[in-house]
Amino acid sequence: MEDRFKKGMSILSITNGDKIEEIFKELEDIAPDLGRFIVEFPYSEIYTREEVDLKTRELCTVAALTALGHATPQLKDHIGAALNAGNSPKEIVEIIMQMSAYAGFPAAINGVMAAKEVFKKRDLLPVE
Amino acid sequence: MEDRFKKGMSILSITNGDKIEEIFKELEDIAPDLGRFIVEFPYSEIYTREEVDLKTRELCTVAALTALGHATPQLKDHIGAALNAGNSPKEIVEIIMQMSAYAGFPAAINGVMAAKEVFKKRDLLPVE
Amino acid sequence: MEDRFKKGMSILSITNGDKIEEIFKELEDIAPDLGRFIVEFPYSEIYTREEVDLKTRELCTVAALTALGHATPQLKDHIGAALNAGNSPKEIVEIIMQMSAYAGFPAAINGVMAAKEVFKKRDLLPVE
Amino acid sequence: MEDRFKKGMSILSITNGDKIEEIFKELEDIAPDLGRFIVEFPYSEIYTREEVDLKTRELCTVAALTALGHATPQLKDHIGAALNAGNSPKEIVEIIMQMSAYAGFPAAINGVMAAKEVFKKRDLLPVE
Amino acid sequence: MEDRFKKGMSILSITNGDKIEEIFKELEDIAPDLGRFIVEFPYSEIYTREEVDLKTRELCTVAALTALGHATPQLKDHIGAALNAGNSPKEIVEIIMQMSAYAGFPAAINGVMAAKEVFKKRDLLPVE
Amino acid sequence: MEDRFKKGMSILSITNGDKIEEIFKELEDIAPDLGRFIVEFPYSEIYTREEVDLKTRELCTVAALTALGHATPQLKDHIGAALNAGNSPKEIVEIIMQMSAYAGFPAAINGVMAAKEVFKKRDLLPVE
Repeated sequence: MEDRFKKGMSILSITNGDKIEEIFKELEDIAPDLGRFIVEFPYSEIYTREEVDLKTRELCTVAALTALGHATPQLKDHIGAALNAGNSPKEIVEIIMQMSAYAGFPAAINGVMAAKEVFKKRDLLPVE
Repeated sequence: MEDRFKKGMSILSITNGDKIEEIFKELEDIAPDLGRFIVEFPYSEIYTREEVDLKTRELCTVAALTALGHATPQLKDHIGAALNAGNSPKEIVEIIMQMSAYAGFPAAINGVMAAKEVFKKRDLLPVE
Repeated sequence: MEDRFKKGMSILSITNGDKIEEIFKELEDIAPDLGRFIVEFPYSEIYTREEVDLKTRELCTVAALTALGHATPQLKDHIGAALNAGNSPKEIVEIIMQMSAYAGFPAAINGVMAAKEVFKKRDLLPVE
Repeated sequence: MEDRFKKGMSILSITNGDKIEEIFKELEDIAPDLGRFIVEFPYSEIYTREEVDLKTRELCTVAALTALGHATPQLKDHIGAALNAGNSPKEIVEIIMQMSAYAGFPAAINGVMAAKEVFKKRDLLPVE
Repeated sequence: MEDRFKKGMSILSITNGDKIEEIFKELEDIAPDLGRFIVEFPYSEIYTREEVDLKTRELCTVAALTALGHATPQLKDHIGAALNAGNSPKEIVEIIMQMSAYAGFPAAINGVMAAKEVFKKRDLLPVE
Repeated sequence: MEDRFKKGMSILSITNGDKIEEIFKELEDIAPDLGRFIVEFPYSEIYTREEVDLKTRELCTVAALTALGHATPQLKDHIGAALNAGNSPKEIVEIIMQMSAYAGFPAAINGVMAAKEVFKKRDLLPVE
């Protein structure tokens, strides 16, 4: 058990170390195991697999969350993680724009607005 | 106009040449312009942009369509396109499995079943 | 109670008389009240209101079901109802195509394919 | 008519009496009938049926709204209603966490955050 | 290219001139082409087609965005556009309420709340 | 690892033993780990928790999958599991009907049709 948790945390330390600590804190007094599940299942079991690199995995997650449209806080977290995993702001914006074809313009615009917020905090605007 | 169409078709000839001809045929007697829009908008305007390569773009589309869950025929088309753009069966399966974390296990299982159908036709099973 | 049911059935006799009988039959041995709810709530309470005519109401329902993407049998029923309420095949196809901008091309293509099936049965192809 | 309304209000007085009054007020100058429909259809026609008790019904609604992900105000209302119908905070959190498997972790986390807000107002934190 | 853009802007000047300028401004430093795509694809290619009038097109878009539920900013923009295209507040509310039957009451209530905000700014409350 | 798997399988042997074997077989040559994840994450980590009983958990899953609308094979599996966990056909139908209020009538009708198929195979029709 311990090992799975460590394994997941080693990925999260690259992609989204601060955010997971925030999530742990938020869940502490209501659903601490949900935080543990996130580390132990997707991060430990999936993101550690070598068939696809972290950079591509995070970009695909940004694509999916943009398309789903209802998970803005997590979309922002994964836009940050996508940057941390080595994607450029331009690459992230490209994939969000691409979602207009699969989930419509509202989802794409809202995705770009989420990216704008993340990029602004990191002083990455304008994207060129 | 002509140029945009040609530009879009040049991408589709790499990723999904046969499928778009099928779609044109299906739409011919009911909504031919919808076929043209697909070529002229996403393929000509988005997929041609160089910021992200075709291989990654198609993988992200597979991620999004798996997560959305309601567009199985298009998911299969883009699994085929993802292969044509240079993704291995393993990479595609990895990203579909990853969607279990963002859209649940049913979406991921149905995505894998769609991939299985495409891979079977191309004699790509078992995936190892 | 009786009155609400009659009121709803009077709308359904215009838009989708045969279909509702089919639905009643399907639900008979498992959830007959669900059939009654459909007549008594949306048809009796909403579709009877005079602020918007039946033709426009059914077109809006086609738009919404195309965009949602997961309710193909009901989309087909409402494409039929939209025709019965006075929409031309062309108008219906236009609105389905419009959904590509709000729910993506896969939803729009699947919507057109649903329309094609309905139009074919009524000998309304090609749409011109 | 009168009777259906009373029947629905008798359920709402148990599960969500205050909230429905708020909703009536919000809808008063724009769509008062929508408030009436909510009382007369789901509450009068469905929640009154004895096959499933109110406690279980509200928990199932929490599950569904968590999974759908786009209806946060209503999710909060139904988390409150689920408490009023006899579910413990722990039971509610359990079912929200369970949704991670069917709609992904973002939906589950957002569901837990909604619950946290409701529980906080009722002084039900920490959940143990 | 120029022509398509002008053609799209001519529609937008009727339905949503101010909003598109706002969107251009928002996208300027991150994804300016996404703004151009919106003008050149849906507005230039779809909304200009004469088979369905603007008034009906915008009402159908309001229906779809209400049903989808995850695109509140765009829903508000299109409620404004629907007014500009000649729909009365009453007609818009009717179609939003109708969505309760196809996407559930939460989507319909959230749609009405979005309309309320738009109507309030234009001093169109109460709707009668 | 072994232990988590066994723990999950002990739940699945109650709710859905045959189905999981089918899923294992289907995934064998394409994504065997996805099958393992299902056992080890939701079944081992969530369904084993004692705060909510299996009967209620499965009913909530039926509610959510009905509302989501895009996962019919999994909805059928969980309708079967809900029966195995002690829910009566009537209870299952009640909760599916209830979803009409939260996800619309099409989702509820399609849910009932899925239940009908499962009940038919088990000779549980008519539901009374």
